[in-house]
Amino acid sequence: MTLCLKNCRFIVTQDANRSILENQDILIEGNQIKQIGKNLSAVREIDCSQQIIMPGLINLHTHAGMFFLRGLSDDLPYLQWWEDVIWPTEKTMTMKDKKKGAEASIKEMIQTGTTCFLDMYEGSEDVADLVKQYGIRASIAYGMIDINDKEKSKIEWDRTEKFKNYLKKLNCSRVKLAVGPNTSFTCSEETLIRSQKYAQENNALVHIHISEAKRDDFPIDLLGDNVVAAHCCYLSEEDIKIFSEKKVSIAHCPRSNMKLASGVMPLKKYMDAGICVGLGTDSSVSNNNLDMFEEMQTAALLQKVHFKSATAATAQQILDLATINGAKALKLSAGSIEQGKLADIVLLDANHSLIQPLKKDRIVSHLVYSVNGSCVQKVIVDGKIIC
Amino acid sequence: MTLCLKNCRFIVTQDANRSILENQDILIEGNQIKQIGKNLSAVREIDCSQQIIMPGLINLHTHAGMFFLRGLSDDLPYLQWWEDVIWPTEKTMTMKDKKKGAEASIKEMIQTGTTCFLDMYEGSEDVADLVKQYGIRASIAYGMIDINDKEKSKIEWDRTEKFKNYLKKLNCSRVKLAVGPNTSFTCSEETLIRSQKYAQENNALVHIHISEAKRDDFPIDLLGDNVVAAHCCYLSEEDIKIFSEKKVSIAHCPRSNMKLASGVMPLKKYMDAGICVGLGTDSSVSNNNLDMFEEMQTAALLQKVHFKSATAATAQQILDLATINGAKALKLSAGSIEQGKLADIVLLDANHSLIQPLKKDRIVSHLVYSVNGSCVQKVIVDGKIIC
Repeated sequence: MTLCLKNCRFIVTQDANRSILENQDILIEGNQIKQIGKNLSAVREIDCSQQIIMPGLINLHTHAGMFFLRGLSDDLPYLQWWEDVIWPTEKTMTMKDKKKGAEASIKEMIQTGTTCFLDMYEGSEDVADLVKQYGIRASIAYGMIDINDKEKSKIEWDRTEKFKNYLKKLNCSRVKLAVGPNTSFTCSEETLIRSQKYAQENNALVHIHISEAKRDDFPIDLLGDNVVAAHCCYLSEEDIKIFSEKKVSIAHCPRSNMKLASGVMPLKKYMDAGICVGLGTDSSVSNNNLDMFEEMQTAALLQKVHFKSATAATAQQILDLATINGAKALKLSAGSIEQGKLADIVLLDANHSLIQPLKKDRIVSHLVYSVNGSCVQKVIVDGKIIC
Repeated sequence: MTLCLKNCRFIVTQDANRSILENQDILIEGNQIKQIGKNLSAVREIDCSQQIIMPGLINLHTHAGMFFLRGLSDDLPYLQWWEDVIWPTEKTMTMKDKKKGAEASIKEMIQTGTTCFLDMYEGSEDVADLVKQYGIRASIAYGMIDINDKEKSKIEWDRTEKFKNYLKKLNCSRVKLAVGPNTSFTCSEETLIRSQKYAQENNALVHIHISEAKRDDFPIDLLGDNVVAAHCCYLSEEDIKIFSEKKVSIAHCPRSNMKLASGVMPLKKYMDAGICVGLGTDSSVSNNNLDMFEEMQTAALLQKVHFKSATAATAQQILDLATINGAKALKLSAGSIEQGKLADIVLLDANHSLIQPLKKDRIVSHLVYSVNGSCVQKVIVDGKIIC
């Protein structure tokens, strides 16, 4: 089955030269981009003369199942908010609630141009089912918490093992395993180190929260190029060096960090150290939406005001976070529109007010500073139109 | 002519008790809200059982004519950005360009739920014509710059006078005069003081930029309860005292302040001093969109991260900025849905993903932290459906 996006008004390729192409076609064969050029054709053709084409956005940190906690409580000091309101309510949520929540999150992500996400929560099997059903792509971790609790530790690892086996049976190339020790202070050192080993053995990622609201200690053996650490507002100079050496990736979640008053991740510092930084929304309870365009906008604005410099982050750098850097962190052949890459593609309405004036050299600016998810018209994942 | 919004799913009234009403009707007669209650009826009725009804948003600082500069340049140091790129390009723009830009801005504002804006730029007559044409409401200032230039001073005041007379002839109750000395450092002291006098004589507002990127000096005789000062990131303790005594209002523009790395306006401090603070987007070149929902979200998040406290600003406070505070600053009987107020009303899609889960006690949170302008379904200004 072939699909051709014809006469694309603009293609924001995110290739090595960050080329933006005009009036070209994209030929998709199976789940891959087969060719980009003029006068291509396929069984199914879509006129894209009124569309801007860009790589699908990669949401590098979510808790999809938490959707229904959105708006339950905000504006409280962190511990009070968490311990007095969120946790007690979360405990009353059934697995069915969490599945329905994950479904709503996935729909919202797709509608706003996200083609892949990295999740950590409970009900991982349900999330995997939904990812298969809705056509999006994901790496999913069951979030483990086992500090000072041998029994809990066994339960958590049994669940991770069970989830691994579930994914094998599910047999969907769009769904991948991640190992999810929650944080270094809510997991035993044994679990942290075992997570890395287990991930290596199973060709999986490790997903963990690190140094969100203060600096966390962690065993170095946890780290590796398969680790995606969320938040990282407070890495020490030594941490940065180790992250860089071990090729750990970071999921930057600016709106969550702002809303919970956690802090500001110093993007330029991490980029200068050669660390791969992607972008994530975190959950609907600490953000409160999953629109990666809004996340990009705020990411750029936050760096500028915090470091008192309009040059602290550029639109291009921020777009990279949400596309190619996310793909790199997930070891995914995606994040750009190039021959051979996975066909994870978003079509935006080129006539939308938020994309005006429509000029080639302003599109990246518009994507980061003006557009939101409502400009998305079609979403293609793995070569299939899913929205 | 009467209009009745029937069975409104929720009405976010923004009345003194911040009541949220369920399944009630709003009866509009002429340009006013006549009654709120059950079983009301009118010549024209609209079923609002699937809508959330809220007061129209008031954008307290815009330069509508600058629309086509959106995305021209970003991420440069302020002076370089302004002097090397924006100004030279602005000089090439014709009055027709600026009018087309103002038209695009007005359309974008209406579509995203803004029912009134306070503008300062050139081409004020054109903006006034467009406001009359599109049905939105505005106070409009011609932006005067006359530092050390007697000749320019005369030209600027002639233009303001000409605009005043133009508005008299236009005779549209939705368009009001504002006097627009650009800043205290680009206008002569004489013009600053004359602005206040002229505004008093003509029952107009004064709109000015104050202390955007550093503290500005200004003559006290400029100030009064008819002044709306944009930005105010750097008021001194003495300034705050004077603003409070003189009842000066402030137009907070968080995204513009972030993008240009100008600074952070300390909202709580100003509110504690009893100053009326509203919310503005600034222009499309320093923001880069005019969506007041996104502005509310960022306003709340910025205060929290900057002051390292999740309690630094609440959703309710931020919604107040964008509605009743804006109305107060503009001396407008609007900003809330109450009997006798102007019928400036926005209808949101209650089934939109960004408003889920739909619960009465979460709506204010959703409006500030999750919703964007794409949730807007209908806009009513002065009792007329304009979108």
